[in-house]
Amino acid sequence: MPKLWNETIEAHRRAVREATLDATAALVAERGLLSVTMSRIAEETGIGRATLYKYFPDVEAILLAWHERQVAGHLGHLTEVRDQAVDAGGRLEAVLGAYALISSESHGHHAGELAAFLHRGQHVAGTRQQLRDLIRDLLSEGAETGDVRNDVAPEELASYCLHALGAAGSMPSEAAVRRLVAVTVTGLRPRAD
Amino acid sequence: MPKLWNETIEAHRRAVREATLDATAALVAERGLLSVTMSRIAEETGIGRATLYKYFPDVEAILLAWHERQVAGHLGHLTEVRDQAVDAGGRLEAVLGAYALISSESHGHHAGELAAFLHRGQHVAGTRQQLRDLIRDLLSEGAETGDVRNDVAPEELASYCLHALGAAGSMPSEAAVRRLVAVTVTGLRPRAD
Repeated sequence: MPKLWNETIEAHRRAVREATLDATAALVAERGLLSVTMSRIAEETGIGRATLYKYFPDVEAILLAWHERQVAGHLGHLTEVRDQAVDAGGRLEAVLGAYALISSESHGHHAGELAAFLHRGQHVAGTRQQLRDLIRDLLSEGAETGDVRNDVAPEELASYCLHALGAAGSMPSEAAVRRLVAVTVTGLRPRAD
Repeated sequence: MPKLWNETIEAHRRAVREATLDATAALVAERGLLSVTMSRIAEETGIGRATLYKYFPDVEAILLAWHERQVAGHLGHLTEVRDQAVDAGGRLEAVLGAYALISSESHGHHAGELAAFLHRGQHVAGTRQQLRDLIRDLLSEGAETGDVRNDVAPEELASYCLHALGAAGSMPSEAAVRRLVAVTVTGLRPRAD
């Protein structure tokens, strides 16, 4: 039964890949970017070094794959959050709140060196654009229902939101992150006059 | 007259230093960070290579000095803008507007590579803190006069402002930068209820 065999192989490859990403992320968090090597990753995962090289050419490739998985996971989470809310205003606030929490958590985990390394890359440009589009569409919808100001283009408001909520990374507590979301959402409200 | 002599020497040194910073910044903007060398800078300024090395050990030191001068210049400009406004609300909006314009201009000038290089450094941490303090003090003052919400600490609101206005770097026009400032300021307003 070649089909089943192929499926088993595929599942095994996926498992090796996932384990490699997990182990590398943990090593970077523990020891810092520069001290992580292919040998150390092979040791940590229990995969032979030669096998590891069949999956990834170097540490950089593993980190980029890990980051892609992270960002795709965040996008998936935000999409779920969006789909669980009942109305336009609720959807927007729920998604912005979830995004702010993600921002605050990612800042805690990896040091500046890792962030600088990852954010240089174009490897997640597509997923980032999908995130922007998701927020922009919620803002468009909110402008139609009257929950969001309509004197500024949704595209510009999306930039404002993503930058403002980036401040979550330097907030001292989850309560402070929630206050940041409230302040940011206030900026989106229609003008009172 | 040794005093006059010393003053002349000092003025000359300052002029050489300034000319070096200007020439290096222009070269980086034209050719990119990696193609700029000490020889090229010496040639451009008309200073001998040996003399240049008496002022700066390498290109990195020149770029850090240039960035310090830029950031200090921005802080000086924002302080002037603050001192020209007549009331608390006006001061805050004028300073945030000027900061947003600076953000949008700096993004245009140097490429990502230069920004990544400079923002890693701790060389301007003191000046950045002064900038934060300046904004925080204006927010405190605004909270007292009723121009700014008082349900969130001025320190947190300052983080929000600086991050939100960072979006100015990706705004397509000066009009869009002004709209960004208006949206950001709306977020600072006291709650209507």
